[in-house]
Amino acid sequence: MKSINIGLLGCGTVGTGVARVLLENRDLIARRVGADLSLKKVADIDITTDRGIRFAEGVLTRDAAGVIDDPDIHIIVEMIGGLNIAKDFILKAIDRGKQIVTANKALLATCGNELVRAAQAKGVDLAFEASVGGCMPIIKSLRESLVGNRILAMTGILNGTCNYILSKISDDKTPYETALNDARKNGFAEADPTLDIEGHDTAHKLAIIASLAFGCHINLEDIYVEGITPITLLDIELAQEFGYRIKLLAIGKKTNGAVEARVHPTMIPFSNPLSNVNGSLNAITISGDMVGDMMLYGHGAGMLPTASAVVGDIADISRNLLTGSTGRIPLLAFQPGHMKKLPVLPIDEIITPYYFRFAAADRPGVLSKISGILGDHDISLKSVHQKGRKSEGSVPIVMLTHLARESRVQQALNEIYHLSVVTDKPVLVRIEDVDYED
Amino acid sequence: MKSINIGLLGCGTVGTGVARVLLENRDLIARRVGADLSLKKVADIDITTDRGIRFAEGVLTRDAAGVIDDPDIHIIVEMIGGLNIAKDFILKAIDRGKQIVTANKALLATCGNELVRAAQAKGVDLAFEASVGGCMPIIKSLRESLVGNRILAMTGILNGTCNYILSKISDDKTPYETALNDARKNGFAEADPTLDIEGHDTAHKLAIIASLAFGCHINLEDIYVEGITPITLLDIELAQEFGYRIKLLAIGKKTNGAVEARVHPTMIPFSNPLSNVNGSLNAITISGDMVGDMMLYGHGAGMLPTASAVVGDIADISRNLLTGSTGRIPLLAFQPGHMKKLPVLPIDEIITPYYFRFAAADRPGVLSKISGILGDHDISLKSVHQKGRKSEGSVPIVMLTHLARESRVQQALNEIYHLSVVTDKPVLVRIEDVDYED
Repeated sequence: MKSINIGLLGCGTVGTGVARVLLENRDLIARRVGADLSLKKVADIDITTDRGIRFAEGVLTRDAAGVIDDPDIHIIVEMIGGLNIAKDFILKAIDRGKQIVTANKALLATCGNELVRAAQAKGVDLAFEASVGGCMPIIKSLRESLVGNRILAMTGILNGTCNYILSKISDDKTPYETALNDARKNGFAEADPTLDIEGHDTAHKLAIIASLAFGCHINLEDIYVEGITPITLLDIELAQEFGYRIKLLAIGKKTNGAVEARVHPTMIPFSNPLSNVNGSLNAITISGDMVGDMMLYGHGAGMLPTASAVVGDIADISRNLLTGSTGRIPLLAFQPGHMKKLPVLPIDEIITPYYFRFAAADRPGVLSKISGILGDHDISLKSVHQKGRKSEGSVPIVMLTHLARESRVQQALNEIYHLSVVTDKPVLVRIEDVDYED
Repeated sequence: MKSINIGLLGCGTVGTGVARVLLENRDLIARRVGADLSLKKVADIDITTDRGIRFAEGVLTRDAAGVIDDPDIHIIVEMIGGLNIAKDFILKAIDRGKQIVTANKALLATCGNELVRAAQAKGVDLAFEASVGGCMPIIKSLRESLVGNRILAMTGILNGTCNYILSKISDDKTPYETALNDARKNGFAEADPTLDIEGHDTAHKLAIIASLAFGCHINLEDIYVEGITPITLLDIELAQEFGYRIKLLAIGKKTNGAVEARVHPTMIPFSNPLSNVNGSLNAITISGDMVGDMMLYGHGAGMLPTASAVVGDIADISRNLLTGSTGRIPLLAFQPGHMKKLPVLPIDEIITPYYFRFAAADRPGVLSKISGILGDHDISLKSVHQKGRKSEGSVPIVMLTHLARESRVQQALNEIYHLSVVTDKPVLVRIEDVDYED
């Protein structure tokens, strides 16, 4: 049986997972792929920590450069994370003609084009299924299964930390800080969870899949990003009363020759299956002109689920090597030269329904003042709720709107904020209200 | 740009869908695949009906054999359905060295091995993603994405007709017959829905995916099959009270060197995301040793969702043709010669929790008689409910059990049925109670 030799760079959580999958299921994988996927080298700065894996003599090394230069190694698996070193190693490995597998979403979202161009120029494969949605085959679906579809929209829960926190607030009626601490305690949040809770990790993932889905380069800076910190238990409970759940969504849509690409807390109706995706799980709905709506659901992070996706990539590349078909599928789903330039719609120009919560003094006339300003800005209300509930000394007024334009909403909310009767910054949550087909 | 020529056999619902996808999204597909997928011939006995497609002169023909013999055609797409003619055409096309795409689950479940052997001998690809779960990439996930996993279990809602009927009974509190008529009226059930409602269509699909998942040949006859006709509104409502929904599930599991492969109505807890899959939608949960649980969700039937999967297969095969990598992935997920012989566990030997409903005269001592018999057969009860509700003149007694062995359950139920106080055949619903991870 032929052997494909693998060099793993970085043996942290996911790297260790990749080593485990390759070693523990080695025979099974060989029965499927028709070749032995042999983990020849594992490079890490730490070669003393016990990872619970018995590597053969000489496999573990500190010399990443040596692994990249090793002429026997066919595939380099970059599991270091971060930007500079990882990028440097990947470019060097491409230069040596190695096939590449990575899960580095931050790197792909910021320098993806450069890496893809280098790989294409050298004629090597660069696979990155594990960079988005952990185990879910989202990249494979976009590049292969859905090839007959014009992708219309994608809506995803792509960050387990945020989803865990929002689920926790909702289930346990705990405030944000308690939920965050709980996420930390259970290993669902990093010591510094900023990248997650501010939505940037989700934006990295959206940049990658929106490019593949719509066949255009999406710049990370063009993606509007809002995190989950402004979301309170009160908003979650009110949303629930109206039949909605609040999730941090990655939204990508094709709209009249432009692309919407945005990340923000979003109210979705109970009938949307994403509303039932709880805890640290991820899911994504993809809408295509032929396929209708399709959803993938699973572990978006974690050692072994992520490693499972990495090993799927390794197997794909191995099969290409075995049949001499490297480059069989274009790295960005579309043939080089067939990507289009599409503008990303500025957030000001999106049109969507909204949820507003105002904190206002409990005085007559307040409601009419607020709704008057909204009317002046062409914002039409679907419902108004004044529950008489006391929140920090003022009464919450909640409104759900019909479709409205973000720029008008921002102007109106700014005017309302400056009313003397309004005691706090208005809260806004965008709504995705399209019912899942059935 | 290179051209791949396609010959379509059968232009019924799905065949028409395939033609539409290939023609309407022709440019888009070419931008992705790097070749023009050209629908050169469409063979059907009916070439007069308006299908809403304007075929070019000479494309539509009655001469299927001529299409198979056409030396310019690279891929034959079999959309005829049924067994004999379809099999004959596929074997002829393989013999002519054509690549094959089919969605014919009945044919694959009954003669799959013969077709696969013929394709392997001739060195052509045989793709069948659309045979299971419509648009959902279940075959691709098993053969490619999850290659690093030992598949432990699969649980799927794979028949839209049954799911529509069960959802309808549950939502509208209608009896079975009304729900079935409604399914017919809305195009979700065939004039003769026997194959669907008796579970055989689901069993065909399970035979296909269980073979791929577990790397062994599953014979259709070894799959235990029970349809949805015994399920009443009362059972659905009682299940709901206990926190369960009833779905027709395809269950495939690896158990101590054997495979469980069975199709029957099943109670699943609300926490299982399959319980929220309603209407004609399909979904499948796959559990792997590395990936944990992963779910795919979407339209399991219908013209365009199914056609989307067929076109995905056509693109995969085209890419193999363009790079000379036909046979890149083994047709049954494992390399030929690496399939194992695994016995299918007879239904008598399965061990699972159960729901029982007995119709008994409302007399003292009935409960103790029934539970006595169950105890004699080592069946331990989790809960007993006697609601005093009148159903056809007798009182329903409902019991949920802990794990019990099917053979003991059948013996006990038979004894209980013969008690003079028991007025009707006991109802049994198996329970899948493993909570989805979170």
